[in-house]
Amino acid sequence: MKSSQERRGRKQQGGRSKREDILAAATERFGRDGYEHTKWADIARDVGVGPTALYHYFESKQHCLYEIMDDALADFRARFDAITARERDPERALAAVIADSFVLSDQEVLRNRVLVAEQGLLSRPSTSEREEQARQAARARTRDLEFAWASFLATAMREGAVPETDPRLLTRAVLGLYNSIWHWYRPNGIVALADVGEYFTKLALAIVGLPPTGRDVAQADARAA
Amino acid sequence: MKSSQERRGRKQQGGRSKREDILAAATERFGRDGYEHTKWADIARDVGVGPTALYHYFESKQHCLYEIMDDALADFRARFDAITARERDPERALAAVIADSFVLSDQEVLRNRVLVAEQGLLSRPSTSEREEQARQAARARTRDLEFAWASFLATAMREGAVPETDPRLLTRAVLGLYNSIWHWYRPNGIVALADVGEYFTKLALAIVGLPPTGRDVAQADARAA
Repeated sequence: MKSSQERRGRKQQGGRSKREDILAAATERFGRDGYEHTKWADIARDVGVGPTALYHYFESKQHCLYEIMDDALADFRARFDAITARERDPERALAAVIADSFVLSDQEVLRNRVLVAEQGLLSRPSTSEREEQARQAARARTRDLEFAWASFLATAMREGAVPETDPRLLTRAVLGLYNSIWHWYRPNGIVALADVGEYFTKLALAIVGLPPTGRDVAQADARAA
Repeated sequence: MKSSQERRGRKQQGGRSKREDILAAATERFGRDGYEHTKWADIARDVGVGPTALYHYFESKQHCLYEIMDDALADFRARFDAITARERDPERALAAVIADSFVLSDQEVLRNRVLVAEQGLLSRPSTSEREEQARQAARARTRDLEFAWASFLATAMREGAVPETDPRLLTRAVLGLYNSIWHWYRPNGIVALADVGEYFTKLALAIVGLPPTGRDVAQADARAA
């Protein structure tokens, strides 16, 4: 399985591969019309290939869905790792990870929507071996991402940067709040993504027990009062 | 359409009606095995009626799903109205509404799970008139519940009980956080419902901008410090 960086690098160097075209077209359809309401043949038509060619890349619509979810989770993980490796201060790292998760293209917003709308399908075993492999890979990515968050929060708690609590429950709360956005947020809707991001970043920090503007500012405010 | 109180009253006085038996069996199946994976005939067997008898009450599995969602939303609304009518202090009313939303039977937990797992289906128009009526009724209930929350929060902001912000975005955040729980919480799992309730009530109050133990205690703490 390719890393997120490899996938992105390849996109930047040349055009998109046929596989990436199919994933993009499927994300568009699933995100806009819903997974159930999308026909595999529509995706083939969007990309300009016959259904037989489609099966060269994906065994089924379900298999394609699992790969989209896997890509989305891999990207979240790569961005999480890059920021937490760069920023050693846990409070600033946390604020940066959350703020970064709102820097999204319209395509990535649709992918988030697919991820949260169809997450229930990840818990249903498939009878096809290839589908089942893709499903288990996406599930493992979900667990790994949650574990990375919980480990990060646990460390931040030990260092006194974040109030002590159950790091796994706190992870579920922060990710749950974030995921809930993609059920209602629409690109080009009434509320701009940047405003949603600014607002929900504050709320996520409040859940973690940090002041919205960062501890330094809050302490300065407290001293001035 | 009957009010939640009428439905509950009827249950307490006599046994459950056949319609209620079907709704309960369907909630159990949808919540445990998933909506897509449940067969309409299985529900008929659970209740001990033939498929034809089932169609006397519901036009389809989809129709039945919409009615379950409608019931869940009606109950949330009735509980919200009862508490906010009884408790005039906005801060105490808010804490009470949130805490109350975790006082749930196993059946109600499953119903919440169905509600959040299948909410995407509420946005897809149906070609059947009866299904479409039920779908629109459940959608209207969702909007009404969100509006009741946003109005309540807007009033609390005007009265100075809750920090000023966009009441509709705040409603989405609080309900989004609450809804996220039912994606992962399982009755008889590792974490007890009461603990989940206590933890997420604190987080929901933090999102609203209120101290976890209520303002009086926090002010007393501040004075003592």
